[in-house]
Amino acid sequence: MTSAAIMGAGSWGTAFAAVMADAGTDVTLWARRAEAADAINTERRNVAYLPELQLAERISATADAAQALEGADLVVLAVPSQSLRGNLEQWRDVLPQGAPLVSLMKGIELGTHLRMSQVIAEVAGVPLAQVAVVSGPNLAKEIAQKQPAAAVVAAPHHGLRAKVAEACAAPYFRPYTNADVVGTEIAGAVKNVIALAVGMAHGLGLGENTTATLLTRGLAETARLGAALGADPQTFLGLAGVGDMAATCSSRLSRNHAFGLALGEGQTLEEVTAQASQTAEGVKSCRSIVELARSVDVDMPICDGVHAILYEGWGPQEMVRALMSRSRKSERV
Amino acid sequence: MTSAAIMGAGSWGTAFAAVMADAGTDVTLWARRAEAADAINTERRNVAYLPELQLAERISATADAAQALEGADLVVLAVPSQSLRGNLEQWRDVLPQGAPLVSLMKGIELGTHLRMSQVIAEVAGVPLAQVAVVSGPNLAKEIAQKQPAAAVVAAPHHGLRAKVAEACAAPYFRPYTNADVVGTEIAGAVKNVIALAVGMAHGLGLGENTTATLLTRGLAETARLGAALGADPQTFLGLAGVGDMAATCSSRLSRNHAFGLALGEGQTLEEVTAQASQTAEGVKSCRSIVELARSVDVDMPICDGVHAILYEGWGPQEMVRALMSRSRKSERV
Repeated sequence: MTSAAIMGAGSWGTAFAAVMADAGTDVTLWARRAEAADAINTERRNVAYLPELQLAERISATADAAQALEGADLVVLAVPSQSLRGNLEQWRDVLPQGAPLVSLMKGIELGTHLRMSQVIAEVAGVPLAQVAVVSGPNLAKEIAQKQPAAAVVAAPHHGLRAKVAEACAAPYFRPYTNADVVGTEIAGAVKNVIALAVGMAHGLGLGENTTATLLTRGLAETARLGAALGADPQTFLGLAGVGDMAATCSSRLSRNHAFGLALGEGQTLEEVTAQASQTAEGVKSCRSIVELARSVDVDMPICDGVHAILYEGWGPQEMVRALMSRSRKSERV
Repeated sequence: MTSAAIMGAGSWGTAFAAVMADAGTDVTLWARRAEAADAINTERRNVAYLPELQLAERISATADAAQALEGADLVVLAVPSQSLRGNLEQWRDVLPQGAPLVSLMKGIELGTHLRMSQVIAEVAGVPLAQVAVVSGPNLAKEIAQKQPAAAVVAAPHHGLRAKVAEACAAPYFRPYTNADVVGTEIAGAVKNVIALAVGMAHGLGLGENTTATLLTRGLAETARLGAALGADPQTFLGLAGVGDMAATCSSRLSRNHAFGLALGEGQTLEEVTAQASQTAEGVKSCRSIVELARSVDVDMPICDGVHAILYEGWGPQEMVRALMSRSRKSERV
């Protein structure tokens, strides 16, 4: 029997706890607040994030990280991307020796431009071969409803991929394995920025053709960045690429999409930020991604456009105009 | 000044006439019925298909194919896929000598399993190098509203690609060129079948994760078929692949999606067919695609599932169950 510690009881951490439990894995879910952990243990629900999901007895919660981590065969990290480093620094000394670390996070660290698996390896002091990534079209709310979905489990070595896939293969959750960690993480991070762009287009009243064009050309620029960083281009055609991008871009459940939508409808960045309880991850990662792309000399016109809207005072209409008036070219670059 | 004959005044033929006119191309639009051609010439509208679209003076219509074709620099074919052969046989002797033939059609011919460009070359008696294909996320209704969109112009030689792209590059319509005709056509044909599957999933009440998973795994099986037929895998990552699939699968405007939706909601094939004015192209191409895949020994589980529902009496729930219970595997095959 495998046991997992899931560090982070937000909506995805909680939904993934349910997936692992349904796959036959024992789960200890770490929540930042003790009241949240207590409520999960007594009411079997995470009322703040996924109130409809009944949590199995096989899931227990705690606000004590050392207790959650003790003896875990797998450590699953599910905290906000930009707080990963701070959290891991506190947990470093109580991580179970040799246990694989699994990232559910999608983002690029501000300042360092590191992917989440790189932050994990650096802060935890483990080899990259000990880190796996789970990604894909996995809106937490639908997973909590046990709607059929698939995901990618990426790790450098076959053994680790197989172990993580086994631990999360539920009747409604189908993990596919993939060796390409770089591509899987780049795809996950950039899609949050593309979702902002798609939200803006929807806010401007544009429909499926524009959405699909942004999604496709967004994927093309993601694949260019990935290739420059050593990713396998085929990953972008897979669940962590197209799949996640399609789910996020069509969903009104996505924070990034909603944030873009409000901007497209004419609200200012200040107004949107003031209303949102959390800043959408794409707003932060956009800056890291644009800087990372420049450092490897990759052209990312959609991310540049979103960056210009967020940080350089452009309007969404200007971005559309700029994208449509570029010189004619081949699909492949 | 380029002149084009567009053969077929359905919604896509008509919208593409507007695109070409906005690109500065003179267009003669052939309509099957003389009344339809007259109405376009007098009212400047195609009332049956796109009543809101005001057609420019640069577009004239006729029901006389020979008159439409005479002196055209480009011949654009926009008739229903399964009637292409019959139409072209009638036009063969009046095609302007040496003029490129451009296909807007998405399907695989029943019986022969030929792609549209192959049917064109065979029936018109021209080399494949004289045939181009335009495809992408191009819902006619949104193009008619001049919403921003992009498309792929595929042809074996650069000169032809550039000529066709030039003739349809409008401010709101951005053509990208691509050398891969096989991949462009396979993507367009299979996406109609995947749209049926996605429609069924929506009819069953499933959401974005399932949609995105079907889209992604649908694209993976499309790419496998394409690879077996000599396509470039990168095409499936582009506008004719991901792009068209994303637009069709999220759109309630798509006939294939609507057809699948009704099946997913529990109607029988007979009931849905009886209500629809036209059979969705995916219903026909599904048969050709499954046969073509078997002939080259390619596994296409989603197309097989749709085929089983359409022609072997399966229910949509059985397809979902079969897809989710396959053995665990790597994303890449």
